Amino acid sequence: MRKELMRLIEIDGELGLLGHIGALLSWDQETFMPIGAVDERSEQIALIESIAHDRAVSPEIGDLLAALGSTSASPSGSPSDDSLLDDMERAYLRVARRQYDRDTKLPADLVAELAREASLAQAAWIEARAKNDFPAFAPYLERIVELKKRQAACLTQGGQGARAARYDALLDLFEPGSTEASIAEVFGKLRGDLVALLDRIASKPPADDSFLRRPCPVSRQAAISGWLMDVMGYERGRGRLDTVAHPFTTTLGVDDVRITTRFIEDSFVSSLFSTVHETGHALYELGIAPGPAFKRTKLHDAASMAVHESQSRMWENMIGRSAAFWKGMYPRLVELASGGDARGPLEGIGLDSFLRAINKVEPSPIRTEADEVTYSLHIILRFELESDLISGRLAVNDLPEAWNAKMKELLGLSVPDDARGCLQDVHWSAGLFGYFPSYALGNLYAAQFWSAMKRDMPDLDERIESGDLGSVLGWLRAKIHRHGSSLLPTELVYRVTGSTLDPKHFVAYLDEKYSRIYAL
Amino acid sequence: MRKELMRLIEIDGELGLLGHIGALLSWDQETFMPIGAVDERSEQIALIESIAHDRAVSPEIGDLLAALGSTSASPSGSPSDDSLLDDMERAYLRVARRQYDRDTKLPADLVAELAREASLAQAAWIEARAKNDFPAFAPYLERIVELKKRQAACLTQGGQGARAARYDALLDLFEPGSTEASIAEVFGKLRGDLVALLDRIASKPPADDSFLRRPCPVSRQAAISGWLMDVMGYERGRGRLDTVAHPFTTTLGVDDVRITTRFIEDSFVSSLFSTVHETGHALYELGIAPGPAFKRTKLHDAASMAVHESQSRMWENMIGRSAAFWKGMYPRLVELASGGDARGPLEGIGLDSFLRAINKVEPSPIRTEADEVTYSLHIILRFELESDLISGRLAVNDLPEAWNAKMKELLGLSVPDDARGCLQDVHWSAGLFGYFPSYALGNLYAAQFWSAMKRDMPDLDERIESGDLGSVLGWLRAKIHRHGSSLLPTELVYRVTGSTLDPKHFVAYLDEKYSRIYAL
Repeated sequence: MRKELMRLIEIDGELGLLGHIGALLSWDQETFMPIGAVDERSEQIALIESIAHDRAVSPEIGDLLAALGSTSASPSGSPSDDSLLDDMERAYLRVARRQYDRDTKLPADLVAELAREASLAQAAWIEARAKNDFPAFAPYLERIVELKKRQAACLTQGGQGARAARYDALLDLFEPGSTEASIAEVFGKLRGDLVALLDRIASKPPADDSFLRRPCPVSRQAAISGWLMDVMGYERGRGRLDTVAHPFTTTLGVDDVRITTRFIEDSFVSSLFSTVHETGHALYELGIAPGPAFKRTKLHDAASMAVHESQSRMWENMIGRSAAFWKGMYPRLVELASGGDARGPLEGIGLDSFLRAINKVEPSPIRTEADEVTYSLHIILRFELESDLISGRLAVNDLPEAWNAKMKELLGLSVPDDARGCLQDVHWSAGLFGYFPSYALGNLYAAQFWSAMKRDMPDLDERIESGDLGSVLGWLRAKIHRHGSSLLPTELVYRVTGSTLDPKHFVAYLDEKYSRIYAL
Repeated sequence: MRKELMRLIEIDGELGLLGHIGALLSWDQETFMPIGAVDERSEQIALIESIAHDRAVSPEIGDLLAALGSTSASPSGSPSDDSLLDDMERAYLRVARRQYDRDTKLPADLVAELAREASLAQAAWIEARAKNDFPAFAPYLERIVELKKRQAACLTQGGQGARAARYDALLDLFEPGSTEASIAEVFGKLRGDLVALLDRIASKPPADDSFLRRPCPVSRQAAISGWLMDVMGYERGRGRLDTVAHPFTTTLGVDDVRITTRFIEDSFVSSLFSTVHETGHALYELGIAPGPAFKRTKLHDAASMAVHESQSRMWENMIGRSAAFWKGMYPRLVELASGGDARGPLEGIGLDSFLRAINKVEPSPIRTEADEVTYSLHIILRFELESDLISGRLAVNDLPEAWNAKMKELLGLSVPDDARGCLQDVHWSAGLFGYFPSYALGNLYAAQFWSAMKRDMPDLDERIESGDLGSVLGWLRAKIHRHGSSLLPTELVYRVTGSTLDPKHFVAYLDEKYSRIYAL
């Protein structure tokens, strides 16, 4: 390996360590930190981020990248150099250049201003949502939108993206290689099919899920979570489960990926599916294996937010809400939920009733309460609105009206108030424009990967029924996880499935599953 | 405040944050970290230490210190500058200069070699102790001793300490201002008195402590620990208690001082006294208050290791093993230990029997099992041997024989084997020469502070009996804690007690207490 590349990997390894240290600071804050420590902790996190940022934009990295061949900023390069590199080395340099370009294009004062405004906007959002007062939040959101436009302009400056839409630059932060046009095309196809399926389901009587609100003590829910983590193949020596207010997965080391959940006594399936979801994320992180040379580099990262979400949603929905999975597992679940007590929440509930209940479809104005069918419609709504905001086609003051109109159009619902409408999510106040599409793209990737898995293992359902989840994990590791970020999402989906991203797999999956459940 | 001083404080604040971040990395490793994460964690800790070290020795600090007045390395200074500073500023500069001189005097290759050799020596020590094989460990210890001699030579170079003994330089790392001669004088007085007291106790029948080995479930021990933490005034919003293999206290932030303990089912007083001991350490750290300007600086630190130990031992022994404390508290302890079960370990045991049991004196070859009377003799033994090793008066190969002779002389015991003799402690293998004296000095400081507290509050025993521990904590905060490291231990003890360190307070305290217990 060339010495410049080795030095680049060395610097990158330290950046990786700093990232993991920052993750520990945040994880501890959410799990175990005493309340009095909160002020200093934010200073500790800011210091680590500032040290990491200083190193990430160091001119030495620019020099090393230049010595190793063309950068995206200088179209003329030295192809002879590049030809000396192997595939992984080239993939690594692509990722390293992307990151360095991005980091160095953003002026420090803009980064600081975004952080400050996002902090203020989030505080304002909390209050505005509590008081259902969108006008109080609007000025904050306007400043965030302006700053995101400036950020996008910085990111597209000079490079090939100069002529592209500003929103593309923000999308690219979460879903490398995607554009507003490419996502609009995919969502356009999806939208009609979902609305049509929802209409068919609405004509049927609703599923009864009342027994899912029967009480189940925390200790039993913890036993269920632990059991499912083991069943899925989560290695206990490389992570742990803790409880928090808002569940997440976080990577504190290449062999230390921790998940979290929340136990609600009268909603035991909440922790159950949250654990399966987060374990799905963790298995991805734990399966990344770009080879020893790149173990501590940027290649040791997910291909994208959407690919990450495809993993959690595949485990949560395609496996965790499937008949095949519960055929084998349901008796054990009933037993663990009852904890030896004859009055457990699932006592007297048959498998079919359980499956109908955990797959109940019912439009709701709230994204986080949405089922598998309606969820992506919530995302399409946000994608259309946020791209309009960033491109200037929609003014912040007109957001509530536009939101409510789309909610009627897509889900047939009247929004009761802004608190349960355009004020429901934290994302925009935090400056996270371009993030929402990942959630729906994750569903689409998951379904397309799932089709490929069934193609490769025609007896997949039987394997799952027999409790053989190792086949699933083994396939995911070999086909998806190990690549890390060495492949762009578009390259990954093409390599694994033989075609570009196509929502037909997701629609077909939903159609088959819900036709059966609702006897459509 | 002068701008150089403000900049120095700013740099120091970041060093403080880095120190706390390093403490979190270590705390997590001992408490919750999954086993697979151990390799990367050591790299994360090394990186933070290296970043902190680079900053601690930056020439900018040297320039700032020079601009602010004379340094210890340049005896001629500008007294006019110094006279512009207030007391706390001068105290801060003294501490900052001490640290900078120390950090810059040590060559990086020596620091690295010490770390590497200590790591190898600790591994060799674990094996040698398990196999009772001192000769296998001797070559490692020899290299450590050589490196510590080199370290001491670097630390004394140039400065006023050039003519002082090498061991003094190592002592000074833990107990600023102390020397081999000053400690030998103090220990010399102590030694004879302790041996004499021990002889008198040995002539009496031993106390019965068999009931302390009755089983007590972990949940009840946890309830006892939590109760005692509250009784002592530990603020739960500024720390927490977790379980580990070897209990410790660690500071993760000025408002985040966490303690740990270990629950052993058939030794409930082990976790009880360990919790009281560690809470004593934590209360010190939490009480440091050198003023807002110095909140994040090196002044926000203990005066010394021995002063730290004085706090933990005062709470553990002078309060936690006292008749006054348990007169009020014993009924609640009996109740918590039984957990509503009539067969709790203290059922049918009277207060006097309990007090005799927790104050049982019995020479043992093992330091960590030693009682209040014999403990300091274990330390005197180590002090005499380690100063001989560093000064070259004792060869490593002669250590076992010297150890065994002193054990006979001080404690009247024959050492059964080296594993329970000179191989019993980890300290020397870790390069910790000069650390042991802190433990015994801690006892002496504690007793002298205790005398002063009784002088200031003649009704101290009554207050403690009535459960008023707030008086104790309030006195400690006002007299000791708040000063942090702004006073040297010698200054602190003189200011608080009106005299220099004198072992007579400790001897008188032991004499009075054990005369009563053993009816001497």
